[in-house]
Amino acid sequence: MDSVSARGDPSLPHVVVVGGGFGGVSAARALGRAPVRVTLIDRSNHHLFQPLLYQVATASLSPGDIAVPLRQFVGDQNNVTVALAEVTGADLERRAVSFTTADGRAQTLAYDALVVATGVEQSYFGHDEFARWAPGLKSLLDAVAIRARLLRALEIAETEPDPAKHRDILTFVLVGAGPTGCEMAGAVAEMLQGPFRTEFRRVDLRSARIVLVEGAARILPSFSESLARRAHARLVAKGVEIRTGVRVDQVDGLGATVAGQRIPSRLVLWTAGVTPTAGRLLGVETAPGGRVRVQPDLTLPARPEVFVIGDTAHVERDGRPLPGVAQVALQQGRYAARVIARRLANATPPPPFRYFDKGNMAVIGRGFAIFESGRLQLSGFPAWLAWATIHLAFLPAAGNRFAVFTRWAWSYATGQQPSRLIIEPRGTPPA
Amino acid sequence: MDSVSARGDPSLPHVVVVGGGFGGVSAARALGRAPVRVTLIDRSNHHLFQPLLYQVATASLSPGDIAVPLRQFVGDQNNVTVALAEVTGADLERRAVSFTTADGRAQTLAYDALVVATGVEQSYFGHDEFARWAPGLKSLLDAVAIRARLLRALEIAETEPDPAKHRDILTFVLVGAGPTGCEMAGAVAEMLQGPFRTEFRRVDLRSARIVLVEGAARILPSFSESLARRAHARLVAKGVEIRTGVRVDQVDGLGATVAGQRIPSRLVLWTAGVTPTAGRLLGVETAPGGRVRVQPDLTLPARPEVFVIGDTAHVERDGRPLPGVAQVALQQGRYAARVIARRLANATPPPPFRYFDKGNMAVIGRGFAIFESGRLQLSGFPAWLAWATIHLAFLPAAGNRFAVFTRWAWSYATGQQPSRLIIEPRGTPPA
Repeated sequence: MDSVSARGDPSLPHVVVVGGGFGGVSAARALGRAPVRVTLIDRSNHHLFQPLLYQVATASLSPGDIAVPLRQFVGDQNNVTVALAEVTGADLERRAVSFTTADGRAQTLAYDALVVATGVEQSYFGHDEFARWAPGLKSLLDAVAIRARLLRALEIAETEPDPAKHRDILTFVLVGAGPTGCEMAGAVAEMLQGPFRTEFRRVDLRSARIVLVEGAARILPSFSESLARRAHARLVAKGVEIRTGVRVDQVDGLGATVAGQRIPSRLVLWTAGVTPTAGRLLGVETAPGGRVRVQPDLTLPARPEVFVIGDTAHVERDGRPLPGVAQVALQQGRYAARVIARRLANATPPPPFRYFDKGNMAVIGRGFAIFESGRLQLSGFPAWLAWATIHLAFLPAAGNRFAVFTRWAWSYATGQQPSRLIIEPRGTPPA
Repeated sequence: MDSVSARGDPSLPHVVVVGGGFGGVSAARALGRAPVRVTLIDRSNHHLFQPLLYQVATASLSPGDIAVPLRQFVGDQNNVTVALAEVTGADLERRAVSFTTADGRAQTLAYDALVVATGVEQSYFGHDEFARWAPGLKSLLDAVAIRARLLRALEIAETEPDPAKHRDILTFVLVGAGPTGCEMAGAVAEMLQGPFRTEFRRVDLRSARIVLVEGAARILPSFSESLARRAHARLVAKGVEIRTGVRVDQVDGLGATVAGQRIPSRLVLWTAGVTPTAGRLLGVETAPGGRVRVQPDLTLPARPEVFVIGDTAHVERDGRPLPGVAQVALQQGRYAARVIARRLANATPPPPFRYFDKGNMAVIGRGFAIFESGRLQLSGFPAWLAWATIHLAFLPAAGNRFAVFTRWAWSYATGQQPSRLIIEPRGTPPA
């Protein structure tokens, strides 16, 4: 029985969208006027603007600033029902997804079309035992936990009478120098250089270390070499130690071992790799890297009613897979909705999906970013201004734009970290 | 060894303030110009504006709106050092407090004067086993957990196909009809009557029940009977079921038993009683009710250097103990600081502490409050306006006032609950 059934005319075709990230939400929104019932399933109750998640982890923004409840997001769209549930599998033959509700009940839901936008999980390259000690940064829960551990490390140092121990307590290791790792490194460096310097009376925060570790030969491999070099210089100027071309051998509660060398640390953060999720969910073939191979119209081979979009879909352009960024997911969500609507209207299907690359950006602290789009390359303050404008514009709701703008203006003016509450249970073990 | 030693001239007298609530913070602030070193110890990193905590629990405000990091709060005050630690005891003979740091190290700290402002904990009247199922509302962590459970109950009902089960899933039991219980009941009722009605497509939120349970003969025993009667009528008009003069026999994971009658419920909230904490901490005599008996100058008998203030101190006025409200703690904190400063200046000690009662208020949903001060009694919108103005004015920092005002204006205009994220681990057991 379809216990989570969409509202509206039950004779309308039923589109099930799995995942409330950029891809899923853009598909659901784009189906607003189509003659379909839509059910949007996510295990979180909110859509998260992931590009700014590192700012929650570094106490610059509050969780509510960068998230919007899914129900509110689609509240004005009468043909969408939201279900808080974790999808556990799909029966492609019988056209049904199975899921578990928030109170643990197993249910199934039949679909006429399925849009899978389940994104990626953190990957530890076979070392899942690192997860306990080196959290990733994928959800608000992750961000709040990392923020608590960062802030608690400073508090612990403040109560440690032996200054010789401060350096180890205040060593932060970031594994992976993609945009998230670099953005975190820049933001942590700035946090330690702002008003914290005087608010912490006893510990000298200049004894803190930020170590950014990357397996590739250079940081930001998805950017051009010249831009990456500028970001590298900026990070070094902020005091970040960068180690490229090295592997992490070990992570435990007392630190990390990198290229044979031990780094004592209370906080190792992992942003090094991801595992796409849709292959396992659907039980279908994946490309190297784990993404699901799809047709030019983003459907599974011989399953024209099943779409896979976003980070978890393998789509090539000029022989290279598309990057796992928000723009790809947003465009693919809209594309899948268009294919569904055209089919229902018996219209010609749209031409194969083509990604329109609006560019690639990363930010290193206040006032410095790198931006590249085709041959255009920008760095420094102009790129940061573009970054700030674009991110404000793409935030999901007016309330988010207002909150983030206010918070940024405030912290730009005062240098303060506006969102530095520790609201975790005391003595929470790293989990 | 004093490992958490205050900064500044070590020859200055050292005042240790335990607790960063209203009492402790007001004492620390009032010592800003005194020739002393101050160490403010709290197990949280923030000062919390408790009177609005119920609005975080009901998704109206975000945690950051009503809290300010202690370091930031006293950041401009050079003679104060903050320590994140849990005070475990005091040796009054040797004038030292012992505490545990955030990483579990035991330390001690010597004082010349001690101000104990440790407040109260939830009390279950000997039924500590209820705590697991019926959380109290004392900290941001509590509020965020209650918010998650409230919102998750709605989500669970939405995925439950059998409407007959919705009523039990959506039954909320509030134990204790003091201001917090009544404010929660009113706020939950409004939450269920706003835009949620349409955002939840399948479940009929009119099937929800809010049961407010009170052991005394009427609600709001600290208010006059006529005002309590008006608040009672307002709650009933909002659909709240009120049971007075009854006892809670049992609370477990499936509901509560009240006066022999079983109420199935997924969320029982406990605001019925409190236990003062300072008696146990100091190992001194307490009055009935558990508060520490103090002299007219708020010091312990024969320990003129030890002050006990706020909810945890027993001070009488006209033969009745002062209520456990913010105003008492604020005034006592300032008073203790004055006594300390006068002693150091060898000036005449101030006259015995006298509480200046500015009045007592409680709010039942948007636009309705009750307020009483001496013979003045107000209810309805004028009282609500007074309530809103006073609470905005007393928020700790300008950033909080701005955030709360904006959030209230927004939700007054749209009816939306602005802060409804669930950022707890999935399947978190009630703890």
